[in-house]
Amino acid sequence: MGNENKVIGRIPISRVWPEVDGGDFPAKAFQGEVITFGATSFREGHDLIAVELHLTSPKGETQVIRLSEASPGLDQWTTKILLDQVGNWSFQISAWDDEYQTWLHNTEVKLQAGVDEELMMLEGERLLKRLAENAKGKDKKALTDFAAHLTATGTTPAERLHVALAKGLSDLADRNPVRSLETLSDKRTVLCERRLAGSGAWYEFFPRSEGAIRAKDGTITSGNFKTATKSLARVNQMGFEVLYLPPIHPVGTSHRKGPNNTLVAGPSDPGSPWAIGNTAGGHDTIHPELGTEADFKSFVKAANKLGIEIAMDLALQASPDHPWVKSNPQWFTQRADGSIAYAENPPKKYQDIYPVNFDNDPQGIFDEVLRIVNKWVSFGVKIFRVDNPHTKPVDFWQKLIAEVNRVNPEVVFLAEAFTRPAMMHALGKAGFQQSYCYFPWRNRKDELVEYLNELAHQSADFFRPALWVNTPDILTSYLQFGGKPAFKIRATIAATAGATWGMYAGFELYESVARPGAEENIDSEKFEIKVRDWDAALKSQDTLIPRVTLLNKIRKENPALEQLRNIVTHYSDDPEVLVYSKHLAAEHNGGKANTVLVVINTDPHSVRETTVHLNLAALSAKGEIKVTDLITGQKFVWGEHNYVRLDSFTEPAHILRVES
Amino acid sequence: MGNENKVIGRIPISRVWPEVDGGDFPAKAFQGEVITFGATSFREGHDLIAVELHLTSPKGETQVIRLSEASPGLDQWTTKILLDQVGNWSFQISAWDDEYQTWLHNTEVKLQAGVDEELMMLEGERLLKRLAENAKGKDKKALTDFAAHLTATGTTPAERLHVALAKGLSDLADRNPVRSLETLSDKRTVLCERRLAGSGAWYEFFPRSEGAIRAKDGTITSGNFKTATKSLARVNQMGFEVLYLPPIHPVGTSHRKGPNNTLVAGPSDPGSPWAIGNTAGGHDTIHPELGTEADFKSFVKAANKLGIEIAMDLALQASPDHPWVKSNPQWFTQRADGSIAYAENPPKKYQDIYPVNFDNDPQGIFDEVLRIVNKWVSFGVKIFRVDNPHTKPVDFWQKLIAEVNRVNPEVVFLAEAFTRPAMMHALGKAGFQQSYCYFPWRNRKDELVEYLNELAHQSADFFRPALWVNTPDILTSYLQFGGKPAFKIRATIAATAGATWGMYAGFELYESVARPGAEENIDSEKFEIKVRDWDAALKSQDTLIPRVTLLNKIRKENPALEQLRNIVTHYSDDPEVLVYSKHLAAEHNGGKANTVLVVINTDPHSVRETTVHLNLAALSAKGEIKVTDLITGQKFVWGEHNYVRLDSFTEPAHILRVES
Repeated sequence: MGNENKVIGRIPISRVWPEVDGGDFPAKAFQGEVITFGATSFREGHDLIAVELHLTSPKGETQVIRLSEASPGLDQWTTKILLDQVGNWSFQISAWDDEYQTWLHNTEVKLQAGVDEELMMLEGERLLKRLAENAKGKDKKALTDFAAHLTATGTTPAERLHVALAKGLSDLADRNPVRSLETLSDKRTVLCERRLAGSGAWYEFFPRSEGAIRAKDGTITSGNFKTATKSLARVNQMGFEVLYLPPIHPVGTSHRKGPNNTLVAGPSDPGSPWAIGNTAGGHDTIHPELGTEADFKSFVKAANKLGIEIAMDLALQASPDHPWVKSNPQWFTQRADGSIAYAENPPKKYQDIYPVNFDNDPQGIFDEVLRIVNKWVSFGVKIFRVDNPHTKPVDFWQKLIAEVNRVNPEVVFLAEAFTRPAMMHALGKAGFQQSYCYFPWRNRKDELVEYLNELAHQSADFFRPALWVNTPDILTSYLQFGGKPAFKIRATIAATAGATWGMYAGFELYESVARPGAEENIDSEKFEIKVRDWDAALKSQDTLIPRVTLLNKIRKENPALEQLRNIVTHYSDDPEVLVYSKHLAAEHNGGKANTVLVVINTDPHSVRETTVHLNLAALSAKGEIKVTDLITGQKFVWGEHNYVRLDSFTEPAHILRVES
Repeated sequence: MGNENKVIGRIPISRVWPEVDGGDFPAKAFQGEVITFGATSFREGHDLIAVELHLTSPKGETQVIRLSEASPGLDQWTTKILLDQVGNWSFQISAWDDEYQTWLHNTEVKLQAGVDEELMMLEGERLLKRLAENAKGKDKKALTDFAAHLTATGTTPAERLHVALAKGLSDLADRNPVRSLETLSDKRTVLCERRLAGSGAWYEFFPRSEGAIRAKDGTITSGNFKTATKSLARVNQMGFEVLYLPPIHPVGTSHRKGPNNTLVAGPSDPGSPWAIGNTAGGHDTIHPELGTEADFKSFVKAANKLGIEIAMDLALQASPDHPWVKSNPQWFTQRADGSIAYAENPPKKYQDIYPVNFDNDPQGIFDEVLRIVNKWVSFGVKIFRVDNPHTKPVDFWQKLIAEVNRVNPEVVFLAEAFTRPAMMHALGKAGFQQSYCYFPWRNRKDELVEYLNELAHQSADFFRPALWVNTPDILTSYLQFGGKPAFKIRATIAATAGATWGMYAGFELYESVARPGAEENIDSEKFEIKVRDWDAALKSQDTLIPRVTLLNKIRKENPALEQLRNIVTHYSDDPEVLVYSKHLAAEHNGGKANTVLVVINTDPHSVRETTVHLNLAALSAKGEIKVTDLITGQKFVWGEHNYVRLDSFTEPAHILRVES
């Protein structure tokens, strides 16, 4: 909210970053994330300025960091900082007249030209005495001595300056600035959340499918939390950190959908878990066939023991059998004929779902949802995957997430929003820690270059993308028709380009048959229990399990990959060979830089040979670099221009770690 | 200044425009300018929203305008408004649940599908009754009648809806909305200044050159305001509206520069007018050789009588002989040896100039400059061309312009800022009504397409560019080596692409000889008096005078050209053939649309044939268009794809007015 008449400071600071909508919302970061702080600042005339970041941690400690000029013609000053504490960081930019550097620059130029030599020594003396007034202890003494030294006789001015610089005058002066004409920016906030808010490897399964048994007569016995507990080992072995479960609540019976979204369910069809609620209960209840609350708690504990967090679905809608329909009919829309409105997108009808009407009783609905979320939080659930948040009011989410995070700042909300950009971005600003994104539909090299740059460099302050390779609703034509190479390519890109990536069960088995005419799997797991032979799959070499396991291992061993904002795309001469790198400086990685370069053939139907042209500066490299391929173990020496051959039918990618 | 935690409204409005830095500064407009107002707004789910602009004029009258969806996938809603009053316009965006349009859409779809037909009539009845409650008089009655009609028996629902729509139900309902869930944006301001702040044709001459006489022995008698008054006819004949004069104050004698910026002036050298001040006076004084204050007043009056405004130079620096040096030595920088610092860019020295040190006595200097500006305002000067504003503090300008405009809002300040983008933009935000820009260095087609789009569509809310073709400091290599066609091309582009364009005397005579190694004219008028034979020039066909006259006439007759924001660039197959158009809708031009299309060969050394591909929608045209070339009078029938042949040696451009 502007004041329409902002007073410009003595040293203008026209922009600071990170900043969202002029400071209307805090910028997002996660613990361990490296953030670029900066400002556009400049002054009149030729004199130099200094620009500093005053950064205050959640614990209240303030550090002052001198920024360096990143793009001189653009007057942009930046630094990169790893945020190591969860909570609100605040920062302010300070810009001031850098009298010492101005004097030094002018003096060096004039000595070179033989102009004003003694006068510049006098100017230096006067300046250093002023710096000394502000300084203390040894520095005060040293500045006073240097002041006298500059105007001492016996040597030439050039010799005096040379001696002073050799003895560390510049460090001393920079350490004791007078900060003339100091101008401060507005304060801004960076909300630093826990790592999984922005970075992690996610997996999904339906508990009812895990351990489900198909009898010889074809009848299926549902899995449950006890049988699903056994599947945790598989999830853990692949290296996933979060396991997301579709709704685990009682499923409605009225208008229950049959297989493939048909309108009539047979007596043994389990229905869609998103048609929530029946006489057994609603959103606060566990589906009886999955087990008891105790079973669920045990399941959560078993997962946590393996280092896996459970993410729960939050789907704010009801089946016609949900207890709310009787207890709180005002939470739904009453039609003119007195009936309750079911979901529809005219002329399509979804009679198994009653949408909640948030405008009828906003406070009542808010209180009930908060109660439900808090109940599951008390069960150890700290992550919620929110179903279709873009069909509920944005202001509801802003209020809910703020209240939940006020008490439990570690709770993470993932927006399952596949919709238009304005809404997706607004949900991020409203507080969603992360969101599904357009990644499934960005498959060609050009699309990926554009989209990855947008995600990393344009929207990262308010929109954290989760790069899911599939969902039960999304089986893109790329996967339908790309064969096994397509699955390998997509998993490789998601795991290395995304700070967060995710995969739904079945992807590792190359499940790629679509419902005719649709962009989703046939016999979708949404409407039926899947019986998969995981034991056979784990033994087989013909699954994606080894690749997924390797990808998550590479992520863990290369923390540069667990960031998003550090992505840099490079050039190749081939329209399908995508190249990007991620670099983490030594100072942000315990003293050892980590740099990974990914080169991948995005065409699953081809063998491609081309030349890759690297922006070596983005790798903090010059000349030759030694690289190790983390897929094959091969070692190469690369330079600015490199030949590659990528055969999608065998291995479509290099994942190269820069060794030196 | 954000609040770090903005509460998102029920119907999110995530952006409004025009808006500068989140509302930190008002957006700029000029009287008669057509401004696009808009917002990004959207809601959850499928229901429709309405978005309105509430626009309040400086006189306090508020109009409510329904916006239309400009880019559906981007949720952008816009309208174009011609601002007809000078002063602060304020606006706010309102977004609400459009229950009528949602009902109508759903009903039409359901009737088509044969679903819920009578139910939708009941829903309609219920809605129209609610609209009727809010309505008055005839509308109330009509809405009530329509409500009853929808549920009347005897005809089918489809027939009932058809009848209601045919009788104007939609207009009636749109006119009487209930505005459920109404959400308001923050208020924003548009500062609408007088036309010349943003649109006009400018000329420059040195009064001392106008009417100057060279005797047979080579000695020169200076022109003065009386002789320069005679030159006003020439300026008027070419169609210029503003005449800018370099400084008219006494010129310093100490270290006076000689011809071509040499360090030693001869006794008859007049010196640079920018070395202001001698014993005769300073910035508040007229150079004695130019005349008296009465002469200057007469000159201003004579110009005004011809419809020409005088723009004065405001160059805040002093010669060593300026009265300030004695009266207010604290306004300059004292060096360590007690001397006053002259201007320098080490190792270069400008000993004829003492820069003002604004930090030594900010209020004293402010008061003095305000006094000087107000003195000349009282002489009838309402436009100041500010010399090198980027070498003075930005906050000084913000304060000065605000105070001058508080009392005299018609005063216009032009920034002569050729510097980096951040500073140029900051000066615009600080209040400068317009600025010189990078136009002289944008000569190739690609450069011009990019730059014109930036000026018109990215920075127009805070930065108003003046497209000057030259200055005494700027004779680009394009003009040096492009011959007469280059001059014709540049004037044509400046006059038709710029809302404001300008030209320095001598351009129309193709003065193109550079000082060796420099990008400026040899024998620069800054350091010597120019004696030009204007009578001969006016008689000659071999000058640019007829072209300039024609260009200014075309501008006056085609108000679309006097706008900047309406520029649209089109495609041609040739890398040097630039195509752009400007369109003014009938509603913004007294009932008759004005559309002009410019096609120009930007290569002064060639004859080019190519195909021009038009975005006909941008011309509000379809299929064939009849066009008249305003240069040659030729008439053509054009369409989407058009052959052109442009011979830079004869005529490099078409300026086509779309007739129908």
